[in-house]
Amino acid sequence: MVINYPNGQPFKESHSALKKTRTQNTIYGNRGMSLEDEINESNKYYLEHGIAVIHKKPIPIQIVDVSYPKRSAAVIREAYFKQASTTDYNGVYHGKYIDFEAKETKNKVSFPLSNFHKHQVEHMRACQKQGGICFTIVRFVLSSELFLLPADIIFEYWDNQESGRKSIPKKVIKDKGIELDYGLEPRIPYLEGVDCLISNHKF
Amino acid sequence: MVINYPNGQPFKESHSALKKTRTQNTIYGNRGMSLEDEINESNKYYLEHGIAVIHKKPIPIQIVDVSYPKRSAAVIREAYFKQASTTDYNGVYHGKYIDFEAKETKNKVSFPLSNFHKHQVEHMRACQKQGGICFTIVRFVLSSELFLLPADIIFEYWDNQESGRKSIPKKVIKDKGIELDYGLEPRIPYLEGVDCLISNHKF
Repeated sequence: MVINYPNGQPFKESHSALKKTRTQNTIYGNRGMSLEDEINESNKYYLEHGIAVIHKKPIPIQIVDVSYPKRSAAVIREAYFKQASTTDYNGVYHGKYIDFEAKETKNKVSFPLSNFHKHQVEHMRACQKQGGICFTIVRFVLSSELFLLPADIIFEYWDNQESGRKSIPKKVIKDKGIELDYGLEPRIPYLEGVDCLISNHKF
Repeated sequence: MVINYPNGQPFKESHSALKKTRTQNTIYGNRGMSLEDEINESNKYYLEHGIAVIHKKPIPIQIVDVSYPKRSAAVIREAYFKQASTTDYNGVYHGKYIDFEAKETKNKVSFPLSNFHKHQVEHMRACQKQGGICFTIVRFVLSSELFLLPADIIFEYWDNQESGRKSIPKKVIKDKGIELDYGLEPRIPYLEGVDCLISNHKF
């Protein structure tokens, strides 16, 4: 049977959803896994081992129409994506409130501030004022380098955008951020970076 | 122009969405406002006054089909409600991680444990082990009484369900919970209850 997409285009085996299913059970370095998948897996590890309780928030949507077919689950028939008013991940670790974003960039030399929305930066600022630990996990896709970038650095560059610089140089991220190495379990041991922040008396 | 619902039924002015818009600007006791609306409004107050950063999590859904009409926003055409793996609200207050549910009951003498899913109780237990402050805001609808019920009490009754008792008596909630009075700003000053928990050295 030939399966076509609704637009009539032929169905290809390399469809990303299939790829995802395939890589879920096998670890081939980080090939095929998105940063989000890797963080979700790490959070699962942290949760199952009683180390931390950190979850990705669901995508906020505006539901317009729901149908209730007989004898089956309610189906959302019309909904729209809403802009999130917070960051993607939050939770609790060693009594501390943890709040972060995960971002990838193909840029080689810097991390563009266009990766953030104003309200996300404001959210991190508000959380940090309450004693929360806020940061961004930044992945430089082309070099597979991974950093925990404390929110303070983001605020500094965000507030100075007027001066013309619209990105954080990778050099600054290397100097002031914490480099994370990929692990087996968890895939991204980012709480080690958080430990660094805590032991540096930043929190 | 006559506007009908998609099912052909005539559109009525008393539609709940309209009602909501109307009550957003005016406070008539708690008439017409759901517990969720009241908590969201309280959270907004706490956020705007720099007191705490606490948000309701979006409803988790499984998106199956999205269409991308030209020159307009992406439309979700098929999606299903997923069961949440956490509680509804979390955030940070005075450096503490806060995590809670909000539940209403029409029961007069007790609060049925059927209001919780197993995973919600497990989530609260995991958060509390990490030093988070977990509770449920319980509203007895018929008497308009409002309590902050610490998670420990919920765990106690949850774990003893085998014994036959499937609800927490209101008397116990009155004794061991913290009664909350409705206020003007915020509508539900539940952080006063959290202050009580903190000052009782529970956290």
